[in-house]
Amino acid sequence: MPLRSVLVTNGDIDHVAGLLTLREQQEFDLFATGEIHAVLADNPMFDALKDGIVMRRHVALGQPHEIAPGLQATLFSVPGKVPLYLEGAEVQTDLEGEQTVGVHMQVGDDHIYYIPGCAAMTDDLRARLQGAALVFFDGTLWQDDEMVRAGLSQKTGKRMGHMSMSGPDGSMAAFADMDIRQKVFVHMNNTNPVLRPTSEERKIAQQAGWTIAHDGLELTL
Amino acid sequence: MPLRSVLVTNGDIDHVAGLLTLREQQEFDLFATGEIHAVLADNPMFDALKDGIVMRRHVALGQPHEIAPGLQATLFSVPGKVPLYLEGAEVQTDLEGEQTVGVHMQVGDDHIYYIPGCAAMTDDLRARLQGAALVFFDGTLWQDDEMVRAGLSQKTGKRMGHMSMSGPDGSMAAFADMDIRQKVFVHMNNTNPVLRPTSEERKIAQQAGWTIAHDGLELTL
Repeated sequence: MPLRSVLVTNGDIDHVAGLLTLREQQEFDLFATGEIHAVLADNPMFDALKDGIVMRRHVALGQPHEIAPGLQATLFSVPGKVPLYLEGAEVQTDLEGEQTVGVHMQVGDDHIYYIPGCAAMTDDLRARLQGAALVFFDGTLWQDDEMVRAGLSQKTGKRMGHMSMSGPDGSMAAFADMDIRQKVFVHMNNTNPVLRPTSEERKIAQQAGWTIAHDGLELTL
Repeated sequence: MPLRSVLVTNGDIDHVAGLLTLREQQEFDLFATGEIHAVLADNPMFDALKDGIVMRRHVALGQPHEIAPGLQATLFSVPGKVPLYLEGAEVQTDLEGEQTVGVHMQVGDDHIYYIPGCAAMTDDLRARLQGAALVFFDGTLWQDDEMVRAGLSQKTGKRMGHMSMSGPDGSMAAFADMDIRQKVFVHMNNTNPVLRPTSEERKIAQQAGWTIAHDGLELTL
């Protein structure tokens, strides 16, 4: 059995479209909040993840769920926004609810956090992450106007519900004085210069103690 | 402008999910039949291909459409079935309609056909393809029970609306006596042994005059 569980933390396309490659006879448990399950149910294409083969498991914020033997995961809300294709005319980007969540996992005494999208570092979030063994964090953009400068979009990172890596409000600054054993940036947009192996920005992030995630990355606690 | 037009020939996931990677600010014309556009409209996730940026162009079977300057494309129906996630209890696999289509393109005097899914070689289809400069054809499976043998599915190729490469009813036999300058298999399933560079099956297909398509393949007419 190559796959036991999938835990989806966000209803937006980049978080759920991969489910379409797991269609048909692949059995697994699909964990998500009620709101994310509702998004999938509204798109009949996801019916290819057939009932009886793929088990929909509803997880509530704050309640631990055993997603694999011995592995407890608990969802918590982080500041974010609704998925792109559900945006109305006005978009609130500091919403805290079921649409954008982080995951807490505990292995022995070690606490691990997976937070692929986050609009801001709040006092609550800071307190939660303090002392963690490992944090995977939103590395979408290097700087807030990166996609605008590249002529790719009118949208800033803030508008998309992402804090950037650099700058005084950025994630590197926010994490600088925190006690976290391993910090890993995930979910990089293709405009983010840290993806270039020889970039100055990558060097800066690594000097600030961050690992830039890549396909096939393996980590030891 | 890296992309001008996308022409979708089938509403099933493997044909349309790639559209989700083109979302947001990428402008292009999206050509498809009314039925395929309806499938996309039923899945709000595809609203990320925004109106005004992505132009939905409805193409009717048998009517030439200019999909790029100087490139005329005409859709025609081939035997097939409805998309997986629209299947009812009874599935007709030799349906000819808007759900499974081939594409005819003309460049000078050369005729090119793209037929990524096809349940059977009919007399009409044979007559149409005769004398073509280039045919891309459904290479999903090597043999009809390949996925069943591999323990991956209860479904045969016939049940999925695909004729196989090998065997007396297969595509290699069907094309053997036809006058076609270049024949290319596309849309291979990951169980198809022709994908393995050193397989006997690949050698057999190549000896029968077929090219096995791969990412980045370039062809000269």
